[in-house]
Amino acid sequence: MPLLVMKFGGTSVGDLARIRNAAEKVKREVERGFDVIVVVSAMSGKTNELVGWVEQTSPLFDAREYDAVVSSGENVTAGLMALMLQEMDVPARSWQGWQVPLKTTSAHSAARIEDIPRANIDQKFAEGMKVAVVAGFQGISPEGRITTLGRGGSDTTAVAFAAAFDAVRCDIYTDVDGVYTTDPRIEGKARKLDRIAFEEMLELASLGAKVLQTRSVELAMRYKVKLRVLSSFEETDENSGTLVCDEEDIVEQNVVSGVAYSRDEAKMTLISVADRPGIAAAIFGPLAKAGVNVDMIVQNISEEGRTDMTFSCPVNQVPRAEDAMEKARASGEINFHGLVADTDVAKVSVVGIGMRSHAGVAARMFESLAAEGINIKVIATSEIKISVLIDRKYMELAVQALHDAFGLDKAA
Amino acid sequence: MPLLVMKFGGTSVGDLARIRNAAEKVKREVERGFDVIVVVSAMSGKTNELVGWVEQTSPLFDAREYDAVVSSGENVTAGLMALMLQEMDVPARSWQGWQVPLKTTSAHSAARIEDIPRANIDQKFAEGMKVAVVAGFQGISPEGRITTLGRGGSDTTAVAFAAAFDAVRCDIYTDVDGVYTTDPRIEGKARKLDRIAFEEMLELASLGAKVLQTRSVELAMRYKVKLRVLSSFEETDENSGTLVCDEEDIVEQNVVSGVAYSRDEAKMTLISVADRPGIAAAIFGPLAKAGVNVDMIVQNISEEGRTDMTFSCPVNQVPRAEDAMEKARASGEINFHGLVADTDVAKVSVVGIGMRSHAGVAARMFESLAAEGINIKVIATSEIKISVLIDRKYMELAVQALHDAFGLDKAA
Repeated sequence: MPLLVMKFGGTSVGDLARIRNAAEKVKREVERGFDVIVVVSAMSGKTNELVGWVEQTSPLFDAREYDAVVSSGENVTAGLMALMLQEMDVPARSWQGWQVPLKTTSAHSAARIEDIPRANIDQKFAEGMKVAVVAGFQGISPEGRITTLGRGGSDTTAVAFAAAFDAVRCDIYTDVDGVYTTDPRIEGKARKLDRIAFEEMLELASLGAKVLQTRSVELAMRYKVKLRVLSSFEETDENSGTLVCDEEDIVEQNVVSGVAYSRDEAKMTLISVADRPGIAAAIFGPLAKAGVNVDMIVQNISEEGRTDMTFSCPVNQVPRAEDAMEKARASGEINFHGLVADTDVAKVSVVGIGMRSHAGVAARMFESLAAEGINIKVIATSEIKISVLIDRKYMELAVQALHDAFGLDKAA
Repeated sequence: MPLLVMKFGGTSVGDLARIRNAAEKVKREVERGFDVIVVVSAMSGKTNELVGWVEQTSPLFDAREYDAVVSSGENVTAGLMALMLQEMDVPARSWQGWQVPLKTTSAHSAARIEDIPRANIDQKFAEGMKVAVVAGFQGISPEGRITTLGRGGSDTTAVAFAAAFDAVRCDIYTDVDGVYTTDPRIEGKARKLDRIAFEEMLELASLGAKVLQTRSVELAMRYKVKLRVLSSFEETDENSGTLVCDEEDIVEQNVVSGVAYSRDEAKMTLISVADRPGIAAAIFGPLAKAGVNVDMIVQNISEEGRTDMTFSCPVNQVPRAEDAMEKARASGEINFHGLVADTDVAKVSVVGIGMRSHAGVAARMFESLAAEGINIKVIATSEIKISVLIDRKYMELAVQALHDAFGLDKAA
């Protein structure tokens, strides 16, 4: 029997009416001939309520108890979903993480999945169960304690089940109907993509397009799980949503697939650093140790043995970065004249696997920004992405200009 | 290390402030030198919310899924209580039923405890844990599914742990400060009892004094667990509340310990039944099969081979009883002229192990009711209890008169 994994997020199971709606989608897949593993999140708001209680009880909480408390939200949804399916005459039962068992590391609140033995669930499928409803986001440690995978972990749970059970596909039901060429709130002509490559999705996710959790995409890429994003709140069929898949499965491909943005960036410049071998390590080592996620790095031309070093990081990590740099200066590890933080910037990126084989993408990007009078502060590139830092006030304009310049409103 | 079991009900852990208050009581016992097992209920209102969701989802629900959903409330409290204790520098951890493991039968929603292996919790005590916080009301079936013990099951969980771990005592913290000679809302002179025998507590519980769940008292009696009822909301010490204990542990003993009442009784009379051997079985067999809980039974003097048979049952079971009797008549099993239901009655009882050795209790009871002009409709007695059915309008008067007649406002 072919097996499908379906995942429903918090808003998709936010109340009993929505759980019913989700269950109807599951029933339809059973009628199409699938065995189904359904992965559910907590009803929306529940996890925040539980987290709030834990934080009020104990500011520096024991992560093992945090996990024991917070995982209960998913258990409730799993039981209710199983009951709803039974009401619809679909043989279903719920599975909590420890019952599967979904084995994880002991890194509480950020555990990694180690193994999903199939025996227990396979046996129930063999006995006639059509749907296994699995509480997402949770597992069991080698010590027998409940673990959670961190926020967004239900996506990862779903992909891991799809890999373990050789699912034909992993459908992620959410409150948007797919992945768009850019944010439709900024560019009205934004177009839903039918397909997108794993690599592109990873770049988009890390750039702040919060459709899928990054780890779930990485896992899907590694295990070749076909991942689909589609809406809980619309009629859907086998062509709905956006399929995240291998590059080879995409026939028609624009050079650029999407334009992403992030408002949460800050530009930091260390002025007049001694330019010597090892200076980058001396700067970025302490930053990494302090937990600063450095994104873009630019080193200016050296003059008289000194240079300016510019990097970007999330806005809320600026104080941490300043602190780390001052400490490194105080200890004599590095020497600089000043540290300037510009928090009034935004990052805009074009992403596309087509770039690998097409020259001129960067040039076209820079030209179209120049035509709008937008000054570029920092540039960073990867094989399938070009990012620029610009003044935050130009962000929307830049997104629209680039969407237009790369013809993203039209399919390839 | 001597071990104490402490149980906190739903109102005692109704919010974070109350959980803190309960944790302070636990800490005090740790400082007195006890290892402690704390059994917690769900925060008040949570279980009803979960039950509501289940019933709305599936009117004829799968009890296995009901248990999986409803047990989550206790898990939340257990984690929060462990965190609160850790904040107070008390080494604590939470235990869900399956982690202990608390092994039960497979009778979902009404499971019976089969075994509580001590190894896991004992090992943690040996490693320095001072408090094991156990989620009440839940266990694990032989099939590895979550079970619940039925409403009030957290009391039973607490007593079972006290038995399994040879606890010096099982303290049940609740919203009343002990067991009273009668309901203080009816008789202002009602007095808190320092001690009460298990047998008396069982009679009082089954008579509607809802301080302790009946099964928990039975279990405590069987395993000689000293059970104490005391208030979560007052300062308490080792003399607080009421100790439920073996008869031998009660030195000073009134003949009567308490006066109980129940408004939920109905009196049913089958008129002119053929008086033949086996007639009682022919009547009460069908009633039992129909799920009618018959309490008191009286057979009147037989005249010309026919008799009247009177019994009492809970008011809400009257339609079921009528239905069962009509069916038995239709099938020819029994024959009677009429069935009269009097739902305007109340049951008043005096309870006391002292009755065993004192004659004249019944006489004194009947005299004091007669002195108030109260007519007795049905009488039933056990070794330690005398119950009467009277008109409901006299109930409060009867309770007050009996409380006075047996001198219950004064200690023995």
